[in-house]
Formats: sequence, structure tokens, C-alpha cells
Amino acid sequence: MIRHIVLFTWTEAATAEQKAAVTAELGKLPGLIPELRAYTVGEDAGINQGNHEYAVVADFDSVDDYLVYRDHPDHQKVIADTIRPILASRAAVQLSL
Amino acid sequence: MIRHIVLFTWTEAATAEQKAAVTAELGKLPGLIPELRAYTVGEDAGINQGNHEYAVVADFDSVDDYLVYRDHPDHQKVIADTIRPILASRAAVQLSL
Repeated sequence: MIRHIVLFTWTEAATAEQKAAVTAELGKLPGLIPELRAYTVGEDAGINQGNHEYAVVADFDSVDDYLVYRDHPDHQKVIADTIRPILASRAAVQLSL
Repeated sequence: MIRHIVLFTWTEAATAEQKAAVTAELGKLPGLIPELRAYTVGEDAGINQGNHEYAVVADFDSVDDYLVYRDHPDHQKVIADTIRPILASRAAVQLSL
């Protein structure tokens, strides 16, 4: 299994509406990209100080399936139209499990 | 469910032995902290450039169970003795799912 993990921080100018759109748009991807085996996305729960603001954890059966997701035009469109305009920083890891 | 996610980068001086010790020591925690429902840890798979170097994804039934893990002396000892000496940067999110 490949577990893809990415954490974001948003720009100070990002609005609540723009942030909510990230979850709305990413939430459409499991219906569009069947290679996604499990997909958890959302805003930080606010338990700790100093956290990043958003997380995506996506599970795939194989590296090839992960690459389908990474490069999928519907995914790339969410990145370009919804994430990148409010993105301040990004941290990612892929785990091979 | 609470999903705790943390990504690390290591110092340039960190040795392969020190990095391997992180997985060895974290791997003991599920046997010591029964609140841990699922625990995936490991080094980045090397698929993409610019990634962080290490990831921890830990699942709990509740915020209280996550706090038991966060503050558990065996967990704090791994952080102090094994992670902090080679830690360059850390990014974390807790998701409420």
C-alpha cells in the first residue's frame, strides 16, 4: 500500500469560503479517481498550537495507482484552481506500507 | 475518530542509524499505549522531490485517547531521546473524522 500524506498552511488572505472549497472540491475526487482506496481530508482540529492548517491522507494499492491520482487532470484542476491560490506552504510524504 | 499526522525533516548530521532508531522506537509504542488504534510510521518512499523525510499517522477513538498518547511518558521519551536530537523541522495536523 502507498499512503500519500500532505499538510498545508494557507495564506493570511485566504477566506473561510476559499478554505471550505478545498474540502468540497477534494471530496469529489473519490468519485472521479477509482484508484483512491481511502481518502481523509480536512482542517486541523485545533487541539494543538503551531500546527499546519489542512491535511490529506490518501491510500492506494500501488505506486502506479498513486501516480494516476497525482497526475489526474481532475486532481490537478483542484490544485490549480482551489489550493494554489491560497497556499502558503506544503509538506508531503509518501509511505510504502 | 482522531487522526494525528506529523511529518519530519532531519538534520544534515543525522546518521542512517539514528534515522532507523526512530522507526524502531516508535514501533514499540502500540504495545505500550493501548489507546493507539492504528499506527503507520516510516521514511518517505522517494517517489517525489522536495518531500519531508518521515511520517507518522496515528488513529484514536477520541481526543482524550490522542492526548493519552501525546503526553505518554514512553512517547515523550522517544521524542526526547531519538527524534529531537536529529529533528530539523516538524509539521503536524490532527483531523477529526
